[in-house]
Amino acid sequence: MERRKAGILGATGMVGQRFIQLLHKHPWFEITWLAASERSEGKLYGEAARWKLDTQLPAKIAAMKVSPNVPEGAAELPPIIFAALDADIARELEPKFAAAGCAVISNSSAFRMAEDVPLVVPEVNADHLGLIERQTWRKQSGGYIVTNPNCSAIGLVMALKPLEERFGIESLFVSTMQAVSGAGYPGVPSLDILGNVVPYIKNEEEKMQEEVGKLLGRFTGAKVELLPARVSAHCNRVPVEDGHTECVSVKLKKKATREEILAAWAEFKPLAGHGDLPMAPEQPVEYLEAPDRPQPRLDRMRGKGMAASVGRLRECPLLDWKFVVLSHNTVRGAAGAAVLNAEVLAKLGKLDGLQAKKG
Amino acid sequence: MERRKAGILGATGMVGQRFIQLLHKHPWFEITWLAASERSEGKLYGEAARWKLDTQLPAKIAAMKVSPNVPEGAAELPPIIFAALDADIARELEPKFAAAGCAVISNSSAFRMAEDVPLVVPEVNADHLGLIERQTWRKQSGGYIVTNPNCSAIGLVMALKPLEERFGIESLFVSTMQAVSGAGYPGVPSLDILGNVVPYIKNEEEKMQEEVGKLLGRFTGAKVELLPARVSAHCNRVPVEDGHTECVSVKLKKKATREEILAAWAEFKPLAGHGDLPMAPEQPVEYLEAPDRPQPRLDRMRGKGMAASVGRLRECPLLDWKFVVLSHNTVRGAAGAAVLNAEVLAKLGKLDGLQAKKG
Amino acid sequence: MERRKAGILGATGMVGQRFIQLLHKHPWFEITWLAASERSEGKLYGEAARWKLDTQLPAKIAAMKVSPNVPEGAAELPPIIFAALDADIARELEPKFAAAGCAVISNSSAFRMAEDVPLVVPEVNADHLGLIERQTWRKQSGGYIVTNPNCSAIGLVMALKPLEERFGIESLFVSTMQAVSGAGYPGVPSLDILGNVVPYIKNEEEKMQEEVGKLLGRFTGAKVELLPARVSAHCNRVPVEDGHTECVSVKLKKKATREEILAAWAEFKPLAGHGDLPMAPEQPVEYLEAPDRPQPRLDRMRGKGMAASVGRLRECPLLDWKFVVLSHNTVRGAAGAAVLNAEVLAKLGKLDGLQAKKG
Amino acid sequence: MERRKAGILGATGMVGQRFIQLLHKHPWFEITWLAASERSEGKLYGEAARWKLDTQLPAKIAAMKVSPNVPEGAAELPPIIFAALDADIARELEPKFAAAGCAVISNSSAFRMAEDVPLVVPEVNADHLGLIERQTWRKQSGGYIVTNPNCSAIGLVMALKPLEERFGIESLFVSTMQAVSGAGYPGVPSLDILGNVVPYIKNEEEKMQEEVGKLLGRFTGAKVELLPARVSAHCNRVPVEDGHTECVSVKLKKKATREEILAAWAEFKPLAGHGDLPMAPEQPVEYLEAPDRPQPRLDRMRGKGMAASVGRLRECPLLDWKFVVLSHNTVRGAAGAAVLNAEVLAKLGKLDGLQAKKG
Repeated sequence: MERRKAGILGATGMVGQRFIQLLHKHPWFEITWLAASERSEGKLYGEAARWKLDTQLPAKIAAMKVSPNVPEGAAELPPIIFAALDADIARELEPKFAAAGCAVISNSSAFRMAEDVPLVVPEVNADHLGLIERQTWRKQSGGYIVTNPNCSAIGLVMALKPLEERFGIESLFVSTMQAVSGAGYPGVPSLDILGNVVPYIKNEEEKMQEEVGKLLGRFTGAKVELLPARVSAHCNRVPVEDGHTECVSVKLKKKATREEILAAWAEFKPLAGHGDLPMAPEQPVEYLEAPDRPQPRLDRMRGKGMAASVGRLRECPLLDWKFVVLSHNTVRGAAGAAVLNAEVLAKLGKLDGLQAKKG
Repeated sequence: MERRKAGILGATGMVGQRFIQLLHKHPWFEITWLAASERSEGKLYGEAARWKLDTQLPAKIAAMKVSPNVPEGAAELPPIIFAALDADIARELEPKFAAAGCAVISNSSAFRMAEDVPLVVPEVNADHLGLIERQTWRKQSGGYIVTNPNCSAIGLVMALKPLEERFGIESLFVSTMQAVSGAGYPGVPSLDILGNVVPYIKNEEEKMQEEVGKLLGRFTGAKVELLPARVSAHCNRVPVEDGHTECVSVKLKKKATREEILAAWAEFKPLAGHGDLPMAPEQPVEYLEAPDRPQPRLDRMRGKGMAASVGRLRECPLLDWKFVVLSHNTVRGAAGAAVLNAEVLAKLGKLDGLQAKKG
Repeated sequence: MERRKAGILGATGMVGQRFIQLLHKHPWFEITWLAASERSEGKLYGEAARWKLDTQLPAKIAAMKVSPNVPEGAAELPPIIFAALDADIARELEPKFAAAGCAVISNSSAFRMAEDVPLVVPEVNADHLGLIERQTWRKQSGGYIVTNPNCSAIGLVMALKPLEERFGIESLFVSTMQAVSGAGYPGVPSLDILGNVVPYIKNEEEKMQEEVGKLLGRFTGAKVELLPARVSAHCNRVPVEDGHTECVSVKLKKKATREEILAAWAEFKPLAGHGDLPMAPEQPVEYLEAPDRPQPRLDRMRGKGMAASVGRLRECPLLDWKFVVLSHNTVRGAAGAAVLNAEVLAKLGKLDGLQAKKG
Repeated sequence: MERRKAGILGATGMVGQRFIQLLHKHPWFEITWLAASERSEGKLYGEAARWKLDTQLPAKIAAMKVSPNVPEGAAELPPIIFAALDADIARELEPKFAAAGCAVISNSSAFRMAEDVPLVVPEVNADHLGLIERQTWRKQSGGYIVTNPNCSAIGLVMALKPLEERFGIESLFVSTMQAVSGAGYPGVPSLDILGNVVPYIKNEEEKMQEEVGKLLGRFTGAKVELLPARVSAHCNRVPVEDGHTECVSVKLKKKATREEILAAWAEFKPLAGHGDLPMAPEQPVEYLEAPDRPQPRLDRMRGKGMAASVGRLRECPLLDWKFVVLSHNTVRGAAGAAVLNAEVLAKLGKLDGLQAKKG
């Protein structure tokens, strides 16, 4: 089977590097185009990027030339664009690629809350992908934008979705301990985080609180009705390389026993109907019985880095239940989430027939 | 002024070392007796202890002989005993010293929730010290036991007390990020915590939840009526040497504005009536305006390590207000708390006239 | 092809866990027996061990029963024993297994310097394996002991061997920065290493200094003549989970240019003659051109964790050349080294015909 | 006694902050002028600087206005300038202040190796300060430049000087493990150093190698003759906040016993003749007997952060002796070193009669 051509916007950053790591041997997609900011354009990728992953930069990718971050003038603009841009830049550039006919699979926050842009974690709300048909770009050029949530929201909604389905969610607390890789590179200065905690991440609590409502919301066919659950988030940075750990207390609409909750997680297989998806974890939510798990160093790579690990389910004196959830913030929480979105879009036929115009 | 003679039980451990650091130049107390477990007894302190603090072990202390952990046979049992024992051992040994006529100022959890034992943070509930008069030991030998709370509860109740006084507390959620020194030495293995979070500390959540109720409770003269607030705690260990950081959401009985809450903290001077207490912080609760504070590395030593630093006051979508509180877990949260208890007891005359019998 | 039966001594410790991780899907060996100290014996492995690796404990292993650490009474003593014991215990137990007819592939220091025991890194001195025929156990029962070096010596000798072959080594200086996993579990207390360096590891400098001489020594057929190079080691513990980084200055017998040294490393393929060895790295010594490499977090897993990464080759104002070498201390430096030793022994026919007597 | 007026160039950076911390209660100097780059000028210091020390920013300093980094137009240019500038900027700006008649006490590398600029650690080579009289600025305006060495060289030369005096130094190896604060703020990205070692610091080895020769060199009255010892440095960054730890092997001209070396360190009191210097440590070189010391977290603050701690003296199989030396890199190794230089200059009368012209 021929692989679909794909490009990466913002290819030199931390999430861009994860895209390369996850895509370069992907059975369905082939990286044919890499773009980055002016500083890098025209250079070979191997020279432009400071590779920071513990697998080696593939030689083929190292030898590719970095294109400018715009559709215009691209010799061969691929129909699929994985975008790893800062929000400010995404706000300007992503629409250009959608208008040029590309499927833009974005990791940025720029359009997540836009009414006609799906904010999707496939295990949670793949049906929201239908929103793309409401986009003007889609109607005009065939292109569209699909987004995945903030890295801190993904593990959380994966753990919540099975509870929402069976019992309904009324309100929740979440207090995060987030890895430094979530801030990109150079990101968090070491003087700020060695032996320290920073109890603040700009805009993070706001994003978590609003994204949860959209992710767990209902798609009517025309729009997404937000889940009216009240969410209170406390976001913290801790000296961990990868993996966001989150303490959750949740109030359910319908009372549930410990066994019912564990069953909801164990039986959560929402992607079964889509057949084999290369990036999908076998067990999206893994419950760990040990009293001191999940832990980022030990559990972040479960399910190829795509599972949400859950542990410590116990009663909450204030709401109903408490638990801990962990997910890998740059795999499950960023590049991997986007790749899985693309895989589902492929299964749904939404990557067929795209014609990217080079402007 | 002559200094009162004081001894330290469990002198070689981490909290024992902090006692030495805080007491060896204390204007009111003089360390005259050091005791530790069998492994150390008979040795010089400098040989028995692996000193782990970044100030130097005083030469005078290094040259003292370590006594057995029992009152019997002590050549000169001091009337004041600072106890830094594990709960199991404290349960057995502390009553022996109280029965021998000593004022036992304990950092252990063994008797914290006992009906006739005061659990005290002087800024919060110094009046509870009256409970000692209900103790049988007190009646028989003059001795008694006074305790301070768990290291994770102290900063929290200092931040809560001014709110309880002015507005009343109905319920709260607290998620902690606790330093490794809280587990003593050798304590947390480095393989468990480097680049990692452990979302579990044995019995810690239970202790926090029950101790808050007693600390904020009302002393009737005969007993302490627990505050009926509901408390939900999530306790985590993070790779920080010293300083517990806690995310708090709180529901008040009476609505309060941001200004009213800040004023409650700023005006909180509960020890003013006791005159100069060497260990007391000038400002027990310091509010920090910067959006990313308090941080353990930068703020744990405020008020000589005895202040609780508070920051990030903001509205909570679920309860009323959210904030972050930080305190030094082995100074404010352990040895310093005990020393301050002793200072208040001294001011109240409760250290006068003690006659320790050597058994 | 049927897999050879193998057992693990000291299976619950950190190196024991690495043995399980590396062997459970090994094409040549099958774990059929696990043994550990009294505390664990009789339990299921999943209960006895606190699994600390970031891959999951295989279910089949978790369900195996832990045997006592002795050959006597073993229902099915396998002919191959991978031993991950502390030196004191190894000194007592390993000879029992060798006497019982087992090939003991040991990671312990107990017999490394014994005259008739080979101390082997296959890429460096596989020919020393011939020493086993001098062992009394071998003559009597067919069993023998083979050892691999200290974790801090392995990467170093891999980098040195190609230089010794081509230019001769006269003397060297090595200063290490060693990961905490090298001390096992619980090992280094977090209070000792968070934000800290401990410039001392008991006996480590002595081991490095003497093992280098044996590893680079010449096997005469009857014994190993130590290389008379002078070695000065400085050993330090740093807050790194896995991967020992070492700064080396070396004086060569014959002057060499930078190009000649790089060629020596690039062309070093000592295991080519043995055919496919599953654990062998394709390129045993990888030279990294970037000025700031190798780094433990980024480079320790090169060659499946079995390669030595070298970088920063530059002239030394005092000796001839300086460089940095890195290797994974629990893969290349411990369990992986032992497995590779076993693979070479298999190729040499030294695992054939062993008859372990159960005592 | 009236305090001398002093200014700080580069006041907002990490070393600038240390200058403020060390000087604001200094009995001899008073901070009257703060300057920083364009980004900060005109702002109040409290707004311009992100204060990163664990003592509080003095309110008086917070309220001072930040001046431009140039002498021109300064309303009140103080005669003493402590300079904490990057080398590039220092090269341009420091001469302007010297030409304006200021004593520039510089922490930068820009002029350290200039023939007529003293590179001084007072305990090591205070007599080199005589070099200032060779400076053209001195002759024309009275102003001059004095420098202190790189943070990695200071502790080293303090440990070496007593050995050079008594035995002579022929050659040495040094391998460093340097704290992140040495790179300033934001400095080292946390992704580069958490759980990692970076075996490279740009230009650091070159600086150490050449500065040692000048510091231990002989001042003839006209110039400094470099010590012809051969020095080989390996420089590494480790995840430590403050404190550089260095492993040293040294060859002496005249053989020395262990006792003679320990005596050389113990009896090293080079500043005794200068009377009381507020910043001088009582014991410049402290030898620690414990086998695993010095350690940065425990020992960096010895002597108010101004002492060099030495430990692990043992024979070197290659040169003569090995040991470990530690010093605080931003106190002893930067701001504190400069302040001590100024104190000695004051004692020598070299701060008298300066007339700074505002240009």
